[in-house]
Formats: sequence, structure tokens, C-alpha cells
Amino acid sequence: MAEKGIVVPFEEVDLMTGDLKSVAFRQKNPMERVPVLELDDGTCISESVAICRYFEELQPEPALFGRGPIGRAMVEMWNRRLELGLFFHVAQHFRHLHPKMAHLEVPQVAEWGRANKPKALEMLVLLEERLGRSRFVAGDEYSIADITALVGIDFMKPARIERPPGLDHLARWYAEMVARPSATA
Amino acid sequence: MAEKGIVVPFEEVDLMTGDLKSVAFRQKNPMERVPVLELDDGTCISESVAICRYFEELQPEPALFGRGPIGRAMVEMWNRRLELGLFFHVAQHFRHLHPKMAHLEVPQVAEWGRANKPKALEMLVLLEERLGRSRFVAGDEYSIADITALVGIDFMKPARIERPPGLDHLARWYAEMVARPSATA
Repeated sequence: MAEKGIVVPFEEVDLMTGDLKSVAFRQKNPMERVPVLELDDGTCISESVAICRYFEELQPEPALFGRGPIGRAMVEMWNRRLELGLFFHVAQHFRHLHPKMAHLEVPQVAEWGRANKPKALEMLVLLEERLGRSRFVAGDEYSIADITALVGIDFMKPARIERPPGLDHLARWYAEMVARPSATA
Repeated sequence: MAEKGIVVPFEEVDLMTGDLKSVAFRQKNPMERVPVLELDDGTCISESVAICRYFEELQPEPALFGRGPIGRAMVEMWNRRLELGLFFHVAQHFRHLHPKMAHLEVPQVAEWGRANKPKALEMLVLLEERLGRSRFVAGDEYSIADITALVGIDFMKPARIERPPGLDHLARWYAEMVARPSATA
């Protein structure tokens, strides 16, 4: 939204209390998760990527989902690689090992939490290779795949996964990402 | 592809041997996974949904990713709910508990495998609610969300998760799905 200059009113929901399980919230999203985008006619869109895609449809520029059939396929491919190969494993590491997650992730399985760390690090190596050949994750243009990668990498800190040294292309790209106005919006 | 009448030559890759880890295959997809769509110019698209989206771009009708900004957001939302809330948990149950998966899912964590069954069944209940109000998963039109749901439900059999009785709307929808020519193509 910051990349597109889109502003909407926000309402915070406390994940740590029972707000997500309330009848009122479940009518907005039966999956009991944030974020939810509520339109003026009451339509509720949940799933972050669905919300992003809705904004892309309303305001196509700057394009964050790629251009043309191959460009859009490449963004979808890289966004999924980063989401399923990096973000997902970092999130599982966090949810299954952090004491504060015990009431949200039931049951916490520590052994599974730990098993995700090498998988996340493996994806970082693939990302390093990719960023040695490409300015952005999905190609020559900034896209949602960069956002997903950035979120995944930043999530490593609370998830207590240290970034291995020597990933120089990743470091070059990361510096470029956090320098964008959207990163601090 | 069957829904759109698209036909491409297929080449099978044996998941059980080391084919996915070969240098030749890793050049097509460094994630070492199928499917991969290889274009005439050598461009390789992996991630099933990226391949589907590419075909949608080339041949928009019948639309499998929705119509209009809200329609497309709804398909993305429901496809993700079914993928992350059903298919994913069924796959984890399979991968972490089936002896034949031991060399692909390392380490297998049986406790985590078992933890996925109630999560998958919870999603089935949400799907039942949804199909009581909607002919198809994402609304009035058949979409990729129906395909993802069908694949997730069919995957329950090898994953050894029994479909609970009394899900009548789901049964109505399932009968309609498997009667489509694409289901047996």
C-alpha cells in the first residue's frame, strides 16, 4: 500500500486476547486471522496476498505483480518460493518454539520448530544465488516477491534465526529494500 | 488445463529417485520440485499456481481466477484458505507420517504430522459452511479454489484422513466436481 500510495483507515486487533475468536470478527474472517480489508459495502477480503491483489486491480501502477504473462508468472513463482520456502519456515520456527505462541499454536512441537531452521537457511542460499543474477527477486522490477522476502528476513529476528555471514548479494539487495520509503511507512 | 482445453507434451519425473536433485533439473527449478512448465525459449515456470496463472493470461476463458477486482480477490482468498488451511495440513500429515516419505521429508516429526489432522478437519467444517451458501468455493463460478479444494480432499485418502460424516453440502459439491470432464482428464 505504501508503494502505491494507498491509505486506508486502520483498526488494530489484539492477537493475544480472544478478539480473533469473537463472533463479530469471525463474520469478517472465519479463519480468525488478520489482516482483513473491509469494503464500504461490507465485503471482507482476507489473506494478505488477496488484499494486495485487490489493490493491484484498483490501481495497477506501480505494478507489484509483474507485467505480461511471463512477468506475472515469474512474480507468482518467486513470491511463492519466498512465502513457502522462507517466510513459512521462519514462521513455523517462531510459532513452535516461542513461549508466547503456546496458546495460538496448539500443540507446539519443538522438534518440528527446529526442523524449519535449516529449511529457511537453504532458501536464503537460493535467494543469494538469485540476487547475484537479478536486481530484484522476480526480475528487473520491484514486486511483491521482494516484499515477501523482506518480511521473511525481518521475521528471522524475533524467530531467533541468525542471518549467516557471506550472503553479499542478499546484503546488497536488503540495503536497497530498507532504503525505500515504503520500508518505514 | 483440462478446464481450458489446453494440451502440452508431458515428461514424467520420478520423485522417488534422485531426478529432482540432478544438475539438469535444478537448472529448471532450484527448489527441486515438480511441476515445471518449460517454454520454447527455455524459460521455466515452476509453482503450480504460477503455471495456472500463466495459462489464465494466455487464455482467459473460462476464467479460473475470477472476474473483476472483487471477484479476483475472492478467488485468491479462497484458494489460499484451501491451500494453506486444507491442502497444506493434509500434505504435512502425509509427509510426516508415511514411511515412504522418510527420505523426502527430513526429519519426519510424527507428532507434528498428527497435529495437522484436526487442523485439516477444522477447515473442512468451514468449507461445509461455505458450500451451504455458495455453489462453488469462491462464489457463483467454478475457479482454481475448487480445484485446490478437490485436490486437498482427494489427497486425504493416501494421507489416511477419513472424511467425517454429515458434511452434506461438501458431498453435493464433491459429486458435482468429480462429474466434470476435467476431473478424469
